[in-house]
Amino acid sequence: MTTTAPSTILAEVDTEARIATVTLNRPEKRNALSLELMGELIEVLRELGVRRDVSVVILAGAGPAFSAGHDLSEMVGRRVEDYREIFDRCCELMELVQSIPQPVIAQVQGIATAAGCQLAATCDLVVAEEGARFGTPGVRIGLFCSTPMVALSRAVGQKRAMQMLLTGVPVDAATAADWGLVNEVVPADRLGARTRELAGQIASASSVVTGIGKEAFYAQISRDQRSAYEYTKTVMTMNALAPDAQEGIGAFLAKREPVWSDR
Amino acid sequence: MTTTAPSTILAEVDTEARIATVTLNRPEKRNALSLELMGELIEVLRELGVRRDVSVVILAGAGPAFSAGHDLSEMVGRRVEDYREIFDRCCELMELVQSIPQPVIAQVQGIATAAGCQLAATCDLVVAEEGARFGTPGVRIGLFCSTPMVALSRAVGQKRAMQMLLTGVPVDAATAADWGLVNEVVPADRLGARTRELAGQIASASSVVTGIGKEAFYAQISRDQRSAYEYTKTVMTMNALAPDAQEGIGAFLAKREPVWSDR
Amino acid sequence: MTTTAPSTILAEVDTEARIATVTLNRPEKRNALSLELMGELIEVLRELGVRRDVSVVILAGAGPAFSAGHDLSEMVGRRVEDYREIFDRCCELMELVQSIPQPVIAQVQGIATAAGCQLAATCDLVVAEEGARFGTPGVRIGLFCSTPMVALSRAVGQKRAMQMLLTGVPVDAATAADWGLVNEVVPADRLGARTRELAGQIASASSVVTGIGKEAFYAQISRDQRSAYEYTKTVMTMNALAPDAQEGIGAFLAKREPVWSDR
Repeated sequence: MTTTAPSTILAEVDTEARIATVTLNRPEKRNALSLELMGELIEVLRELGVRRDVSVVILAGAGPAFSAGHDLSEMVGRRVEDYREIFDRCCELMELVQSIPQPVIAQVQGIATAAGCQLAATCDLVVAEEGARFGTPGVRIGLFCSTPMVALSRAVGQKRAMQMLLTGVPVDAATAADWGLVNEVVPADRLGARTRELAGQIASASSVVTGIGKEAFYAQISRDQRSAYEYTKTVMTMNALAPDAQEGIGAFLAKREPVWSDR
Repeated sequence: MTTTAPSTILAEVDTEARIATVTLNRPEKRNALSLELMGELIEVLRELGVRRDVSVVILAGAGPAFSAGHDLSEMVGRRVEDYREIFDRCCELMELVQSIPQPVIAQVQGIATAAGCQLAATCDLVVAEEGARFGTPGVRIGLFCSTPMVALSRAVGQKRAMQMLLTGVPVDAATAADWGLVNEVVPADRLGARTRELAGQIASASSVVTGIGKEAFYAQISRDQRSAYEYTKTVMTMNALAPDAQEGIGAFLAKREPVWSDR
Repeated sequence: MTTTAPSTILAEVDTEARIATVTLNRPEKRNALSLELMGELIEVLRELGVRRDVSVVILAGAGPAFSAGHDLSEMVGRRVEDYREIFDRCCELMELVQSIPQPVIAQVQGIATAAGCQLAATCDLVVAEEGARFGTPGVRIGLFCSTPMVALSRAVGQKRAMQMLLTGVPVDAATAADWGLVNEVVPADRLGARTRELAGQIASASSVVTGIGKEAFYAQISRDQRSAYEYTKTVMTMNALAPDAQEGIGAFLAKREPVWSDR
């Protein structure tokens, strides 16, 4: 993907492993989510989303931080249209992370704050190094983290989200894991390797099937339970009829390795 | 209830203790939820649901496992109608567990996987032995656990549910308790006794009142807060007028033991 | 506010610190939420809600307990209208705690049970001393805690709420913190000082901005994610245009202290 790789985003695809690594590449700005960066990230994720040879996406940040959130230099003295564009673009990005069929794993070092915390919270899974910190400090600069709260409150619950939002004080990686915002905490020198190992484990499944599951997950999560079952039982029925389910169940019963349709 | 006890389900009622114990009885198949077993379990739960002499139901599994989920031998080479029937029946079972008035306690040893994990997650309370494991491994055999995710994601939250669903790796009992999927973890040789003790504690309350409370819980949980309060304040008002509330509050104020209407 | 201070509620405003302390003042009744107390608490919170010189409200209880819930002497032998009035008033109180613009911190010592547990769970943040206990024991006296379950289940999740509701057994402060019901646990002799410190930290932000954020939080939490983003991105845009955001971001970029419009 070197032909489409833009300046603020690096994208690499390991087609053998079926893993794409997308890197926020403004290390000197702690990967602040400028309009340009968000636009390029959206473009890259859209391209990856339709690729059949990519099973998992790792979202990483270059340099010492994952992301410090919006670019504050774009936030002063602008018109209403400018702010609206920034937050429209930001929400579009967050929804895209969850709507592409591939699971997205955030690989977090250093700070993930404000919209950077939101971006990590929005990924399907999060691996963080021991020194990582997650925070929503907007309240300290007069701009409450109201869009980040959507992802944050759905990950850590009401009281803990309120604490982070009202105080602006970040939590460390261990606390974030305890609260369900982070799936795994590893030593800094293991971060890349462990994230890739997890990605590889997920990529060993059929990408058709993980795509069905990811779509179902976000479609059911905000429905009431009855409606969630009405929906997911149709998903299960259709999934059961798919060649990869027939192959997978047959292989399991025959105690052999399955061969997925995407290989 | 020996007259109605079918082959794949054992049901025993201790009328003195007001506790029913329902046992999944296909130990040689790790209590796989075949169509037959699900149908018989639904029948037994329906019968228990209308009994006024049963206050609590314990749901247990015979043999080394709680339940390994659907019966995979029913899952290969079938028609769409067959799969639809399995998942319709499964959702009917899960909704029934929550709609009968008696609290249902899952007593879990060994594995509770896929629809077996869903069944445990669906029960009102879960007691597990230290060696129990909970997992949603469907992704490994090409059939994503999309109906189990409904119960699982509502019990453990988004990131942890996603981790279990995408990797298929089970979590141990201590982790499940830490995540809110399990209420208590006990040594294996204490599992039956502790579950029964918990059931007895709940059965000492008025079954009319626990029935009101259980119904209210599931009715309010997926509403927005305002609607949940509109609903529950009517429930509270009606509950306060019930003879068992008048008896219970009067007994408390008089420092005597209450006598419930169902005794 | 001594002129309006009624008998069952004490209210003090420290205008320099911008912190109001509202104290439930029926220590001999373990601060039971009588109709009179609820009415006076509602009145005091309404008055505080429109004051521009108050940034944070601390809700405390006089004596050894935070609150034992409804006044049971008002609960026996009454007519349907009486019960309806109690629960209407109670729900009005709970919604008011979340709808005033100032963050409300519960400062909990001793027991917080039934509607007292609900009141703590409803506050934006909770600080508790090590000996505090939280419970919903209504089931033991024939009156299931159906309105408390609304706040409780949204704070601690389904299985843990069910355990508290069905057994009536209280949990200690450390467990409540582990489950997300309590933000901080401190030694009893530090309770007041630490709560005030936390209040001061929040009060150092712009009250316009914390008010925007608190309102947004409860408006988005029960929406589905898409609708939550539609709503919060407008909130963010309007917040960004507010003088306190322009001041705050400008001060941050200039590495100086901001001066808020409410000072």
